This record gives sequence, C-alpha cells and structure tokens, in this order.
Amino acid sequence: MKIRKCVVTVAGPRQRRLPLQTLVSGGGAPRSVLALLLDEACRAGAEEVCLVVSPGDREPYSQVLDDHRGRVHFREQNEPLGYGHAVFQAREFVGGDPFLHMVGDHLYVNRRAGGCASALVSVAEREECAVSAVQPTREGLLGRFGAVGGQPVAGKAGIYRIDTVLEKPTPTEAEQKIVVPGLRAGHYLCFFGMHVLTAGVMEILGDLLRHHPRSSASLSAALAGLAERERYLACELPGRRFDLGARYGLFIAQFALAMSGKDREEVLSQLFEVLALDESGAAAEAEARR
Amino acid sequence: MKIRKCVVTVAGPRQRRLPLQTLVSGGGAPRSVLALLLDEACRAGAEEVCLVVSPGDREPYSQVLDDHRGRVHFREQNEPLGYGHAVFQAREFVGGDPFLHMVGDHLYVNRRAGGCASALVSVAEREECAVSAVQPTREGLLGRFGAVGGQPVAGKAGIYRIDTVLEKPTPTEAEQKIVVPGLRAGHYLCFFGMHVLTAGVMEILGDLLRHHPRSSASLSAALAGLAERERYLACELPGRRFDLGARYGLFIAQFALAMSGKDREEVLSQLFEVLALDESGAAAEAEARR
Repeated sequence: MKIRKCVVTVAGPRQRRLPLQTLVSGGGAPRSVLALLLDEACRAGAEEVCLVVSPGDREPYSQVLDDHRGRVHFREQNEPLGYGHAVFQAREFVGGDPFLHMVGDHLYVNRRAGGCASALVSVAEREECAVSAVQPTREGLLGRFGAVGGQPVAGKAGIYRIDTVLEKPTPTEAEQKIVVPGLRAGHYLCFFGMHVLTAGVMEILGDLLRHHPRSSASLSAALAGLAERERYLACELPGRRFDLGARYGLFIAQFALAMSGKDREEVLSQLFEVLALDESGAAAEAEARR
Repeated sequence: MKIRKCVVTVAGPRQRRLPLQTLVSGGGAPRSVLALLLDEACRAGAEEVCLVVSPGDREPYSQVLDDHRGRVHFREQNEPLGYGHAVFQAREFVGGDPFLHMVGDHLYVNRRAGGCASALVSVAEREECAVSAVQPTREGLLGRFGAVGGQPVAGKAGIYRIDTVLEKPTPTEAEQKIVVPGLRAGHYLCFFGMHVLTAGVMEILGDLLRHHPRSSASLSAALAGLAERERYLACELPGRRFDLGARYGLFIAQFALAMSGKDREEVLSQLFEVLALDESGAAAEAEARR
C-alpha cells in the first residue's frame, strides 16, 4: 500500500479565512496556513492533493498555494451539509486509492524531520490498512472530538485496533463503550484531525448520505462503519496539533513553529523586548515627556 | 479644527494580504488587521474612512470590515505609482478638510485608553495645524523611514515645529540637515506612519505628480512642501508601532496586543505550556512509547 493522494477539507464556516492567514514556517519563510498544510502532506509523500472548499473560495486559496500549485485539485462543496459531505466531494479524486486526509483548521508541529503526517503514513503503509491519528484526551474535552475504542495491538506501542467510533460522546457513553486498556484513568483516544483512509470510506459515506438524514452522515459515522468492514487502526503520534480556529490558535501555533525552528532565539528575544518595554520603559518615558 | 475623515492606504504590494490577517484585539475579540486599524481611527473620532486599495482588493477587504462597513469608502489605485500617488487617490474624499492618515501595514499599541491616533488628533485639533507622529530613531535605521528636522515648541514637551522633511536620509545628510535639539546623540525624529494632514497636502501632491518624475512624488516630498507653506508640527506619542510586514510582525504585534489587554495571563500561560512541553514532555513521552 502506497499513499500518493491527500484530501484537505477547508469548507467549514470557521475555516473559510484560516487557510489565507500567514505564518512563518519553522524554516523561517512566510507561508500561508494552506501552504504549510500542503508542506506537511508533501513530506508524507502525497503527490496530488484535493482541496474541498466552499463556493467562491477557489480563487483566494489559489493565490496562496505557493509552490504547491501544480499538485492541487479543487472540489467545491456546494451546500454546507457538514464534514462527512465535504469529504465525500473528493470521491472521484480518490477513486479506488487509499488517501491521507487532513482538516484545514489544524496545524501539526513536530520537532523531528518528517512531520506527523509522514509518521502516520508510514504506519498505514506498513500495516496495509486505514489508520487514524489519535491523542489521549481528558474526559472533560470529549464533547469536542470524535473518539475511538479498541484494543492495543500486541508488541506495537501506541497502536490500537479500533472497534468503536463515537462522535462527541458524553463521559457516560465513553465509559460504557470506549475505555481503552492501558490509558490513564479518565482519558480516551480522540481524533487528531489526520487520517489515512481507504476508498471504502467513500462508499460508506455515499450510503449514509443517500439513506439517512444528512446530519447523521458524519465522518465519525462513516469511520464506525469502516471499523466493521475492515482492519482499522488508531495511532498515537509524537508532536502536537494546534486548533487554529481557537481564539489565540494562530498565535500559539506560530510560537510552537518558531520554538521548533531556526528562529527560536530571535523570537524569544523579541518577545522579551516587548515585555520589558511594556513593564517599564514606554510608560515611564511617556509620563516623563508629557 | 475638527478631524472627521481618515485615509488609510493599503495598496502597496507587500500590504496586499496583511489587512486580511486575523488578530485578537486587546479586548479579546478576533478582528482583522483592517478592522483593528479602523477601530483606531474611530477612537480618534473619524466618522468616514477612505481605503485606498489595489484593483481587485475591494471585495476581499469588504468582507473583513466587521462593524465599520457603513463608514468605509473605497478608492482604487489603478497603477502602482507609489505611496504619494496612493494618498492622492483620496483627494475627492478629502475635499477641503483636514484628515487623519494611517498606513495599512502598521499597528499601534497603546496601553492607555484612546490609542495613538486619538492622542495625535487631540494635538492637531488643539494646535489647529497638520501634525505627524514621530519616534526618536537610531541613526542606523534612517534608511527605512521619512525623517524630520525642526525646533522644539517652547513649553510643549515632545512637540516640534517641522522645517525639513527628508525621505530615507543618509546619516551624513541627517547630521547636516535634521539634528533636533534635545534628542539623544545619533537619534532623529522619524515618521510613525500616522499623520493629521491638511487638504494642502493634496494640492502639493497634485503639483508633484503633474510636474515631476513619478518617483519623486513621495509623501515625504509633499510634506516637505507643506512645511514651507503651513505651520506643521511633529509629535512624539506614547505607545509603540509594529511593522506587520516584518517576518514575525503579526506575531509580535499580537503579543503586544495581548500583553496590553485583558487576556494577558491566559496568553502567557499558553506560551509557557508550549515551552514546557517542548523542552521536556513531548519528546521524552514519544521516545518512551515507540
């Protein structure tokens, strides 16, 4: 199994301007959020990327692709029918092939070469099956994520065979259905916004969208179906994900990028300069002058 | 003299995406850079704002005006003929009135209520003349700014009567022409990207654009003309300006906004969390798992 395709969804309402935001990469170059995501996909071996966008976003997003222009295909999600429906718009692009999938409002920072997506793709290619990136997450945060239950794979630390997928479970539901042996008490495996999926997911999404109310055709529902049909793993990854849509999300992600990159000292010294002037210099100086 | 109009230029090539970037205001709300600039203009009393933009930028910029939509007029700079030419596009909007002028790629952070523009407008209204905001700047940075020479106004700390304006002078030129009594040795008064100007500037710009090569019709050249015709002051302001077009400009400006706003402690604790995980937790944890 070789992963050559990637699907990035950036059609959600709160994602609509995030891909246009500018950050400085760990290497020190100004890059759009979108270009940084495509960098991550490329380092993982993706040769072609399908961007699922809202109508009208193709043009502004085209302008921030930088050197990825040649490998990007756009698909529009013409109605805002949710995340599962957005992924489904890439079905023709995917064809029968397995693919890397990332959401457009998170950034993954990994100090080591390669990146999170690359580590995930390696596991999928080695295990020859679908794999979702997961992070052990406190019970109190379950309302924000999809979560999985399953069993550790013997001899492979941080890898689990998934048997259950729940979208934003309550703590009670989680305790009944998705306790995973070996995790700290009160912690569950939650999705990371990054998956390697097989084309089977597109079939399942198609069925869900045809036969069920639209609202129930979530990606988590499709992944629950996948766990019934195929071998499907979860994998804990080193590195951190940052939710760019959070209030200081871009700022904190920029800080993490800079701290793991070549400009670490320059950035720290600029921050301390702001703090120092803030605390003493500027105010006192201004008072003395007036 | 009452200032009710504001002209913001955002047509420069490196400014073209900056106004679309998102920051969190000192009050804790996500705002576009453009909306933050318009907030600053409003706090200074501006009721109408003219945005001078590059062709094609009207539409994306319209989408990030937030609650300022009703007071913004667009003018396009149809050819990239420089900064003076961009300001001149607002001549009909300005009419015969004095106006606040700000550049679109800087942000002004002032811990006290009101903001930098408000302080500048107060001085202009009190003194009944054009006033440019200036900062004492090290000789080594002269190549990046317009600079002014003149005399301190007796009894008014931080206010100078301008007699000379030079665009990006050499240190030798500066030493011969614009040494200002009372500043530290090797320091000069440089523009801050914020001015209150009279309609006379538009006449002078018109003359320069008609009779001279385009390259010499800079705003500094027009301000040099203004100093010959009218009483024209420079004013040192408390607060700091941040060049958003610099590599980490957005990041550092966000930090300064957060440090002077209500989320100071939240942001500092998030930064320290990234540093702490970066230094110890994440790497060790990942190693132990693999």
